[in-house]
Amino acid sequence: MTPNRYSQRMNTMKSSAIRDLLHYATLPGMIYLAGGLPAPESFPVETFKAACDTVLDEVGAQALQYGTTEGYKPLRKCLAERMRNLKGIACGGDNVILTSGSQQALEMIGKLFIDYGDIIVLESPSYLGAIQAFDLYAPRYVTVPMDEQGIIIEELDRILQIVTPKFIYTVPTFQNPSGRTMSLERRKQLIALAEHYDVVVVEDDPYGELRYTGEPVPPIKAFDTTGRVIYLSTFSKILSPGIRLAWVVASEEFVRRITLIKQATDLCTSTFLQYAVYEYCQSGVMEEQIEKIRAMYRVRMETMLAALDRYFPKEGVSWTAPEGGMFLWVTLPDAVDVEDTLKEAVANKVAFVPGTSFYVDGRPHSTLRLNFSNAIPEQIEEGIRRLAEIVRRRLEEIA
Amino acid sequence: MTPNRYSQRMNTMKSSAIRDLLHYATLPGMIYLAGGLPAPESFPVETFKAACDTVLDEVGAQALQYGTTEGYKPLRKCLAERMRNLKGIACGGDNVILTSGSQQALEMIGKLFIDYGDIIVLESPSYLGAIQAFDLYAPRYVTVPMDEQGIIIEELDRILQIVTPKFIYTVPTFQNPSGRTMSLERRKQLIALAEHYDVVVVEDDPYGELRYTGEPVPPIKAFDTTGRVIYLSTFSKILSPGIRLAWVVASEEFVRRITLIKQATDLCTSTFLQYAVYEYCQSGVMEEQIEKIRAMYRVRMETMLAALDRYFPKEGVSWTAPEGGMFLWVTLPDAVDVEDTLKEAVANKVAFVPGTSFYVDGRPHSTLRLNFSNAIPEQIEEGIRRLAEIVRRRLEEIA
Repeated sequence: MTPNRYSQRMNTMKSSAIRDLLHYATLPGMIYLAGGLPAPESFPVETFKAACDTVLDEVGAQALQYGTTEGYKPLRKCLAERMRNLKGIACGGDNVILTSGSQQALEMIGKLFIDYGDIIVLESPSYLGAIQAFDLYAPRYVTVPMDEQGIIIEELDRILQIVTPKFIYTVPTFQNPSGRTMSLERRKQLIALAEHYDVVVVEDDPYGELRYTGEPVPPIKAFDTTGRVIYLSTFSKILSPGIRLAWVVASEEFVRRITLIKQATDLCTSTFLQYAVYEYCQSGVMEEQIEKIRAMYRVRMETMLAALDRYFPKEGVSWTAPEGGMFLWVTLPDAVDVEDTLKEAVANKVAFVPGTSFYVDGRPHSTLRLNFSNAIPEQIEEGIRRLAEIVRRRLEEIA
Repeated sequence: MTPNRYSQRMNTMKSSAIRDLLHYATLPGMIYLAGGLPAPESFPVETFKAACDTVLDEVGAQALQYGTTEGYKPLRKCLAERMRNLKGIACGGDNVILTSGSQQALEMIGKLFIDYGDIIVLESPSYLGAIQAFDLYAPRYVTVPMDEQGIIIEELDRILQIVTPKFIYTVPTFQNPSGRTMSLERRKQLIALAEHYDVVVVEDDPYGELRYTGEPVPPIKAFDTTGRVIYLSTFSKILSPGIRLAWVVASEEFVRRITLIKQATDLCTSTFLQYAVYEYCQSGVMEEQIEKIRAMYRVRMETMLAALDRYFPKEGVSWTAPEGGMFLWVTLPDAVDVEDTLKEAVANKVAFVPGTSFYVDGRPHSTLRLNFSNAIPEQIEEGIRRLAEIVRRRLEEIA
């Protein structure tokens, strides 16, 4: 077949490093800290089954029919109420659209805004899945550095003085990959800058409910009085990722346009799953379920932080101290080859994601993303111990 | 907000006429022949519930976890086997990818092939949802006329002598909107032409199982020896559209590329629903279910054809005589304004889809798409009677 058979976007598409590492996950004895999977033992199988049964018993035929593109109205209202009460976001059901996972929301945001060569501002590092989704529409990225408080606002200001991006993409709470949380002050500064320069903000918040220590910070969307923040969240981390159900909260204009895009993209999200999740939400078990997940992941996060402190070399090595979420981020000296380190780690039956995938500059980065939600504490402890040995050897080599 | 805030594709996107008619569906007394909805009373609620329960009881945690992008392996194998046995398509599990409805498959095919201005060949008329999906990537369309045997091959040949399209899109069996089926001979001629000109064929087959009269014709894919046909089918019409589950059968190269695209588009299709549908397929009730649907829709189709014959004027008016599917297609004299006819029809509590939406030439067309799967026979009879009166008046006006 002729090489120009495909669209140009196929020339640059590459598979996610995270997905490509997945085949290691099932090797016997492997301690897999590379994924972003929730703990399967946390899934509320019984209560979700009860919800499915109720839906099929009571409104089976409706639940199995096509639904509206925006999503099931009672679920939209219920999510709006939850976002108002829990997050301080001023919204109603008409501000909510259901999507087939947040990945679909990111892809549709790409469709909505990006023409070839348009500028998008990303945090550095940034979420790999978002980069993949936006890449489909071939933007140029401008990245803004972060510190422990999140995006460095002065740097963002400097960027916005020079370029007009289609939007700023941020994961401000327990960021994937870094685990960092943007401070309250920075959030307020970010929204003020976005208003000043008339820029849209895409706030991706899959982990917001997974806080284990410290004080909750409202989402950036809670400070949005001009309808410029598109807020994304998901049931993947608080109920199940296998149901592929997420939601967007945005101005009615944005919701209308995303609906138009969704119509052409997949008509609608599963009616049955929306009914089932609505029933699940109504049954009142959600908060208990989230508490259960928090308690489970808190132990895992603390185990990983304690193991890092116990086993890892301190000289030239640092790591983030998240207060929630699923990830933390280790920075090694620049001279360490992280791809080589991964190979050695895999040979020693422990896997992580090399940080390079989370940057768009194409340069190698001596950073590691570690996941603490999927492995049990004993594995986390042992995995960090193994990794520490390898890192120690690498440091000796470059010394 | 500045008008160039959005991508250029938003300038031309419009909502589907079919979706926009939907609000008429719920008006009291309305006989709704405008949709493309399966009969909700056909859905196998009880057996599907049993399948969901079995999955959640036996492998609940796995079913609620993220899955592979290509889809659940046993379901891919099971669909390949079904396509081999039922359709004569030479394929294995590696040739199958699960999608979130066929709409998603169409959209991903757009991503895979279409750069701005690329040529796509469509049947005229063609399926509206496909046009919407492809429109996202701004192709130019070249249309090929049809007769009762499907695409006119000589016309297609003439087109392919002049242009090299990225692909030919066809719904050869019980086409939406026309209800026509491409003859066996034409299918063989089409694949021969596609080989001669080295062109990809996208064969969309949502209705293939819904044959009520006449002899089955193998899909075009069954004659594909060079891996150039991408075949699409779906559970929407034989089980439920509310589960959003469809599949693509294609060469391993195409499957690999579509998988890469799907990864960036929505990561994966619902694991839980794939497990549940696999369980449903294994339970052996599928053939019985399809038989039930066929028996139900056959009566509805025959009722509509008989009512057209009884009530409709014959002079200058014609309609297709499908052997299956969900639609038939009425052609009125060019002078009849079909949009006006729709207004009068709605005032008389019967709705159809004006044919204009199924053409890409932007000109008005005096054709009507009528759906016979969703209304009960008594409604179909009465709906056609009402419509006939209106059409008769319109014909008198232009006489």
